[in-house]
Amino acid sequence: MISVEEALQILDSHTVHFGSEIVDLDEANGRILEEDVFADRPFPPFHRVTMDGIAIRYATYGQGRRAFAVEQIAAAGAPQCRLMDQEACIEVMTGAILPEGVDTVIRYEDIRMDESGATIFAEVRLGQNIHRCGEDHPRGARLIPAGTLLSAAEIGVAATVGRSRVKVARLPRVLLVSTGNELVNIDQQPQPHQIRKSNVYRIAATLKAMGLKADLLHLQDDYESILTHLGARLDKYDVMLLSGGVSKGKYDYLPEALDALGVVKHFHRIAQRPGKPLWFGSRAGGPVVFAFPGNPISSFLCTHAYFIPWLQKSLGFPQKQQPHAVLSETIEFKPDLTYYLEVSLEYRSNGTLYAIPRQGHGSGDLANLMRADAFIKLPRGQEVYPAGGTYPVYPFR
Amino acid sequence: MISVEEALQILDSHTVHFGSEIVDLDEANGRILEEDVFADRPFPPFHRVTMDGIAIRYATYGQGRRAFAVEQIAAAGAPQCRLMDQEACIEVMTGAILPEGVDTVIRYEDIRMDESGATIFAEVRLGQNIHRCGEDHPRGARLIPAGTLLSAAEIGVAATVGRSRVKVARLPRVLLVSTGNELVNIDQQPQPHQIRKSNVYRIAATLKAMGLKADLLHLQDDYESILTHLGARLDKYDVMLLSGGVSKGKYDYLPEALDALGVVKHFHRIAQRPGKPLWFGSRAGGPVVFAFPGNPISSFLCTHAYFIPWLQKSLGFPQKQQPHAVLSETIEFKPDLTYYLEVSLEYRSNGTLYAIPRQGHGSGDLANLMRADAFIKLPRGQEVYPAGGTYPVYPFR
Repeated sequence: MISVEEALQILDSHTVHFGSEIVDLDEANGRILEEDVFADRPFPPFHRVTMDGIAIRYATYGQGRRAFAVEQIAAAGAPQCRLMDQEACIEVMTGAILPEGVDTVIRYEDIRMDESGATIFAEVRLGQNIHRCGEDHPRGARLIPAGTLLSAAEIGVAATVGRSRVKVARLPRVLLVSTGNELVNIDQQPQPHQIRKSNVYRIAATLKAMGLKADLLHLQDDYESILTHLGARLDKYDVMLLSGGVSKGKYDYLPEALDALGVVKHFHRIAQRPGKPLWFGSRAGGPVVFAFPGNPISSFLCTHAYFIPWLQKSLGFPQKQQPHAVLSETIEFKPDLTYYLEVSLEYRSNGTLYAIPRQGHGSGDLANLMRADAFIKLPRGQEVYPAGGTYPVYPFR
Repeated sequence: MISVEEALQILDSHTVHFGSEIVDLDEANGRILEEDVFADRPFPPFHRVTMDGIAIRYATYGQGRRAFAVEQIAAAGAPQCRLMDQEACIEVMTGAILPEGVDTVIRYEDIRMDESGATIFAEVRLGQNIHRCGEDHPRGARLIPAGTLLSAAEIGVAATVGRSRVKVARLPRVLLVSTGNELVNIDQQPQPHQIRKSNVYRIAATLKAMGLKADLLHLQDDYESILTHLGARLDKYDVMLLSGGVSKGKYDYLPEALDALGVVKHFHRIAQRPGKPLWFGSRAGGPVVFAFPGNPISSFLCTHAYFIPWLQKSLGFPQKQQPHAVLSETIEFKPDLTYYLEVSLEYRSNGTLYAIPRQGHGSGDLANLMRADAFIKLPRGQEVYPAGGTYPVYPFR
């Protein structure tokens, strides 16, 4: 049995790059960019009018003129036009290219318009209401560096520079395996000693929210059958997530079967509650295997505290500070184990995140997860965790 | 022009229920449940063994016996068996139904096994290591109430009670409309006075992260064309999100066109920066229309501060406290407007969320969004917002 810290170190040293792929921009949200994206033009690409109003030559205003005849209208999307008479103005619309011969824009709110033209009745600064060519970024600037987690903000920038397809980290092919003779499918009526599967659906929903689709497989607690079915799929997946069959039971064949299949164990059993029996290993050429304990809370905790951080690191997610929350009441926990406690999170209006303990009836109490938003990680060996203490949290909503 | 508070009230009084639909459970993540989900069996459905080990009759232990012959093994997924000899034990596996005639489980870690049987060397409590039938919830309990936002936790519970399909709030059919003669498609090379579209891609990515697909449409700044193309689509969509054409410009035809099409204006212009020209209205029988200003920061702010809260309220999302963050430096802002400032968010290890200001070069500086995670909402009329003050934030990642 190893400590949580040792387990995390071992996971960190077994990250995997699954390769790259080119995707359409509208599929790129939530993916990690694997190329630099550059500005094909300055940002903005021309002196851009930012207010509806009129454009003048500032020097004319400086000489005292306030009334300007209107020569024409410069619309957004029209080619650049030119002021002919320095004493006149051009009506300009937001988004238009600034006409030649003008340098200052006055918005409609600050002028009066009539048949003879526009009269300015507000203070005017040279160059106002113009977003100047290249003010934000020059042409050729690296706008989005490789390694960025793409979100709506980056997708907007990529669109602006004409990138309808981008290179991103490929997502792993995932096989999600339930094990256990007691399990039946959702649509089956269980016998009195049976239950319906739930772990794989809970994990699949978590993966889907990250954009990953997983194939499902069920294995009976039978050594030969496990060897055959897992063996046939080893080359087809980058990651296998197994649920059940890794504890001390007589029919917990997975560690032995994985060993026989050439999947090398990196650790088995962590000094934690829940999720002590977690098994982690990998095979040269793939796949990486996480075998979670079969209890619902245990498999869910292991997904969020171990698999997802490993996956994000493998994909190249920017490393972030784990969110922390303040424990709202004192917790006692005697065993010499790291304790991942179910909590609900509450952002109070002082900007602080509070964690309200939501203990259930042990690691089989799957309905209790609905009362919680996260696991809070209480370090091993403290026994009493006072209200007001701050600890890392692993949100699952 | 109305205040932010008035705008939010008007939006609240114009929420729409888009109806219900039945979806497969694996499509239900992130959706709002519109029926109650009940326990078809007690939770757990039988006295469930929670540790691998042996099961005994506690009274026998109470009489001083520590060595127990093993009668048989009770595996998970096997029908219930029965202890024949009260002085003996049954080996039991996690997840098994507790055999008849036993009432206490001792884990392997607390016994020694040899050919003659098991010897207990730890203290034993009556009933230990059994998750008792109905301990979490009785049969018929309402496990997931209508109105719940479904996440992995609820999907696991729904699977357990056999709900492979659930009734959820239908998502709106959304049309996302870009307007403006200056705009060209991603894959086109813009003329010097043109730019590529980005607002609709930014908004589409935001919607997609919420599970909504939107159709795209582009309109030129032409009154008749707007009437024709929008008019033909009024009955086909529940929501139209338009970008551009609602300001004071000569070619900002949208308010007039929407009025001509029978879309009733509920407000136009909010005392805020950015996004002052926001237009909101609806038509009996649909659609609801949000017309965003065309500037990239403005349309993005309006999406997150107005459209998404309205959408979530319409879908029946549970009302939550808006997250708050602590301003990391003093901000001055003189105009009498609510100021939505771009900030990056940082969870510090004291459990407090900090907002670091990331001002850009105005509402056209779309690349600046990449430096930020959220908008912080600074109330109107304060002029100075001191470091350490706490304000609501609208995260966009």
